[in-house]
Amino acid sequence: MKRFFCLFFGVCLLALGCATPPRDTVFQASTIDALLAGVYDGDMSCRSLLKHGDFGIGTFDRLDGEMVLLDGRIYQVKADGKVYEPDLSLKTPFATVCQFDADRTIPVKPGSDYEIIEKLINKYFPNQNLFYAIRVTGHFMSIKTRSVSGQQKPYPPLREVVRNQPEFVMKNISGTIVGFRCPAYVKGINVPGYHLHFISSDRTQGGHILSFKIEDGKCEVDVLTQYTLVLPENTLEFSETDLSKDRSGELKDVEKRQTPNER
Amino acid sequence: MKRFFCLFFGVCLLALGCATPPRDTVFQASTIDALLAGVYDGDMSCRSLLKHGDFGIGTFDRLDGEMVLLDGRIYQVKADGKVYEPDLSLKTPFATVCQFDADRTIPVKPGSDYEIIEKLINKYFPNQNLFYAIRVTGHFMSIKTRSVSGQQKPYPPLREVVRNQPEFVMKNISGTIVGFRCPAYVKGINVPGYHLHFISSDRTQGGHILSFKIEDGKCEVDVLTQYTLVLPENTLEFSETDLSKDRSGELKDVEKRQTPNER
Repeated sequence: MKRFFCLFFGVCLLALGCATPPRDTVFQASTIDALLAGVYDGDMSCRSLLKHGDFGIGTFDRLDGEMVLLDGRIYQVKADGKVYEPDLSLKTPFATVCQFDADRTIPVKPGSDYEIIEKLINKYFPNQNLFYAIRVTGHFMSIKTRSVSGQQKPYPPLREVVRNQPEFVMKNISGTIVGFRCPAYVKGINVPGYHLHFISSDRTQGGHILSFKIEDGKCEVDVLTQYTLVLPENTLEFSETDLSKDRSGELKDVEKRQTPNER
Repeated sequence: MKRFFCLFFGVCLLALGCATPPRDTVFQASTIDALLAGVYDGDMSCRSLLKHGDFGIGTFDRLDGEMVLLDGRIYQVKADGKVYEPDLSLKTPFATVCQFDADRTIPVKPGSDYEIIEKLINKYFPNQNLFYAIRVTGHFMSIKTRSVSGQQKPYPPLREVVRNQPEFVMKNISGTIVGFRCPAYVKGINVPGYHLHFISSDRTQGGHILSFKIEDGKCEVDVLTQYTLVLPENTLEFSETDLSKDRSGELKDVEKRQTPNER
């Protein structure tokens, strides 16, 4: 009987290991180029997404806001600037998540902005061919974000939607930057380079980051060596979209990263 | 006690489900552009690869031959034209595999060649944005393949290696075509479009397919909606390779698909 209980315990451990998201793995629902082309119908529920990680970014069905997934909770930063916790049945047409487990914590100098943080992480992690999850926790002198509003069919391309994007400027605010650095070769699938979202400590403000300046904080990085992509096989618009086109110009317009002179 | 056994049985089922490769999933080790650039040092053992599928293609450590994985057995078609079953400790620098489970079987007309088979599959599976595993079993009037030979450091780029590739022409031979159709957006990561290898029924001949003509056969297709990529995090050459370059010209040279006039 003792042997039987050992076996049971072993099998339980194996099953438990399988039930938790794999480590060092980026999990992605659909592709960025499908989103750029206007495939906004959600395919994967927030509930399903949470099985693959506790940390990440994305958007929601009909492009209804920016997603921030932090500490296992999903926040929806809508175009009205407010933050909601969506019902877990809400679906996403595009999201990137992981089980965040920092490999390294880097101190951040006061006054650091987007470019300085990028350079800092690039210095510590020169391997451009892996994925990195990035979490910057701290107090910000200023942070500028945008959101996107829920669309109606026929959906316009993302480049058109962001022409009228609401932007939010926050001053003197605590919160967390959540995002990823992806390798260049995911062009067409995800965003090469940095893609960061923000959520305030009180979970009332956030969005897709355009620019920021840190007063005080730390940057944690999780190196990710495995990448899993799930395709929306049942979404007709996905199957009919030409994903062989080079949409890097559209992506640049959509990301709308701001240069220091624009701030 | 009865309840306990039910619980044990359930946990066993869960553990068993986790131990088998996930369905409808392409699993890939490293990227095609790293291989094009000469990253030939194997990172994943054949033993590990087999945990992710029973069907697939790839190459071996030092680029020592073409890989065919069929019915759970790995075959190594070396530059001498012979087929070996490698020790499972042998590593691969690039491979694409899946757990093959045909969704549809398509009859193939006698005399069909590469282009006709491509058109046939494209007709049955017009969704260009998913992955497809392709298995063509039959008797071939002719089939032309190539292999590659094991390289010494410093490794030359793949385009240089294939300039002197040994080619093999087989006539009146039974066997299986093993390969994939990948979406255009995996450019830089895998081979967009068709990439097929061959192994004869008696497992003595095979290689990377350049052209073929079928006498009689069937084509089975497995639709794959999930994609997992594992990166060789510990391979120094991988981390140092510029994977932002457009290597599609190199890939075209390396694939060496032959037009009807060249045959």
